Amino acid sequence: MKELATDTLNGSKVIISIDRKNRPIDNIVIEPSITNKEYEKKCPFCSGNEKYIEEETFIINKDEKWIVKSVKNKYPIIDDNELNKVRGEHDVIIDNYKHNSNFYNMSKEEFYYLLLIYKKRFKDLKEDKKIKFVCLFKNYLRDAGASLMHPHSQIISLPFVPPILEREYEICEEFYKKMGINMYDNLIKEELENKKRVIYSDDDFLVFIPEICRFTGDIVILLKDNTYFYDIDENRLENLSVIMRKLFTKLYKEYGNCPFNMYLHTHPVNQKNDYKNKYNVHFHIVLRKFNFGGFELSTGIYVSSEASEDIAEKLKFN
Amino acid sequence: MKELATDTLNGSKVIISIDRKNRPIDNIVIEPSITNKEYEKKCPFCSGNEKYIEEETFIINKDEKWIVKSVKNKYPIIDDNELNKVRGEHDVIIDNYKHNSNFYNMSKEEFYYLLLIYKKRFKDLKEDKKIKFVCLFKNYLRDAGASLMHPHSQIISLPFVPPILEREYEICEEFYKKMGINMYDNLIKEELENKKRVIYSDDDFLVFIPEICRFTGDIVILLKDNTYFYDIDENRLENLSVIMRKLFTKLYKEYGNCPFNMYLHTHPVNQKNDYKNKYNVHFHIVLRKFNFGGFELSTGIYVSSEASEDIAEKLKFN
Repeated sequence: MKELATDTLNGSKVIISIDRKNRPIDNIVIEPSITNKEYEKKCPFCSGNEKYIEEETFIINKDEKWIVKSVKNKYPIIDDNELNKVRGEHDVIIDNYKHNSNFYNMSKEEFYYLLLIYKKRFKDLKEDKKIKFVCLFKNYLRDAGASLMHPHSQIISLPFVPPILEREYEICEEFYKKMGINMYDNLIKEELENKKRVIYSDDDFLVFIPEICRFTGDIVILLKDNTYFYDIDENRLENLSVIMRKLFTKLYKEYGNCPFNMYLHTHPVNQKNDYKNKYNVHFHIVLRKFNFGGFELSTGIYVSSEASEDIAEKLKFN
Repeated sequence: MKELATDTLNGSKVIISIDRKNRPIDNIVIEPSITNKEYEKKCPFCSGNEKYIEEETFIINKDEKWIVKSVKNKYPIIDDNELNKVRGEHDVIIDNYKHNSNFYNMSKEEFYYLLLIYKKRFKDLKEDKKIKFVCLFKNYLRDAGASLMHPHSQIISLPFVPPILEREYEICEEFYKKMGINMYDNLIKEELENKKRVIYSDDDFLVFIPEICRFTGDIVILLKDNTYFYDIDENRLENLSVIMRKLFTKLYKEYGNCPFNMYLHTHPVNQKNDYKNKYNVHFHIVLRKFNFGGFELSTGIYVSSEASEDIAEKLKFN
């Protein structure tokens, strides 16, 4: 059964074409090179190679050694130079001091430090009153857009609301006007009743795959209330670090060392109308088993080739 | 200088960040496997393996051997089953009978046969009156979304106008209302005056890189008048096959065996208002040296990291 559907969260057009997941793939899968080295001489992000770093913006130490830190991106998408017509900041967050660390092998404690620095830098960047949205994301491996192997995330402050977020805010605004409740509260209720797309749920977070999503198997970690990202308390971040540890362990078991993107969608910042009561913070995790091709580039339509229920079933954890 | 700009043709938001092209890349470039074999035993598209093909839709023979043919896609994005809520057709076009053929080594004559079958299948698919847009595209290599190595293109008929095309038609409509002329005619005039972004120009076609484009170095082959794609005559297709041969020779010289997407943007079909006088048919060729990462996925904003003029300079031909 083929169907044209709409991504619940952002309104993207998606063709549901489940049987396509069985299409044959040439036997030339190229495994990404994996290193076992904890330290790489030429890597600008390795502990011991601080000479490569121009400017640190924050650092978390433990036992007199740094564990995670953020630095100014040497090749920023956006920067705060006065000559620019569009100004903001672009940090690289070095997820971990170890070159061979990654989300599939990081400990609960390492995730926790990383989440702490995510929150800290988000809070710092939003202090600039011209900023309207803070974009936090991570590219893992070349196939997901990473240019360097050493595990890192990126955080960018933007003086405008990006198109996909604009659309998300519109959708939750429309829902609120029509139904009088937060769309995300309603979604949580429905997903918990249905159960089939739920990977994990507790008092703070729902981990699930939306019924219709732009990216096949788009995993969403949704905060269960409308707290701002920069206000999430440390207990909840600790809880989230346990969830991430478990989720990525499951993902590794199912898909191996698969390239992925993770990104955070939050309320806009420094805005009178910031959709506080209508929007819940969430992370997306998108596995990049396949690349977008000419169809997506040409049309702006996405193709969903595996049912969210079937993927969620494989990833459930307690 | 950083700038937020808008893709001329489709209105996408693009951050201009030219210096980013210098960012370091880990030295782990994985070369795609190249085969020298003209025939591969297990390949469903190779001449001699016709048993794998369910249904041919068209074929071009020469000296009693097939050169290029189109077949029904076994794993279609869309099909014409009555049970579907969205119905259309999805052909695979086998670009060439040789397994190791590709756009970088195909002859002028081979391009010509391919263009003939593109036109023929486009014309066939638009005959179905429920179809509103015919999407023709090609993915070359895994990094550009191809799942099989044997050179192939795809053509899909859709019963709706896709979002990116909707936006393109709106833009040319607005331009026409405001200026009283076809936006593409104006663009051709401006690009020929400016010269810097022009790769090639003759009576029929302009090959250029738009000043602002979603994809860094997005090469456009633009028909100089508003003829429908399925009405382009054989002389012009022959001319186009020479252009493609020369362009891909240049691309190979500059970037090697680089993954790419090619796609065709045309007037909508079977519509009362089909923007005939306001829109010119064009191919896009998008090199996939880098993958889209979390920033693009999260925000819907693109990043342009090299000036169109600098790329066009390298690719100019006569």
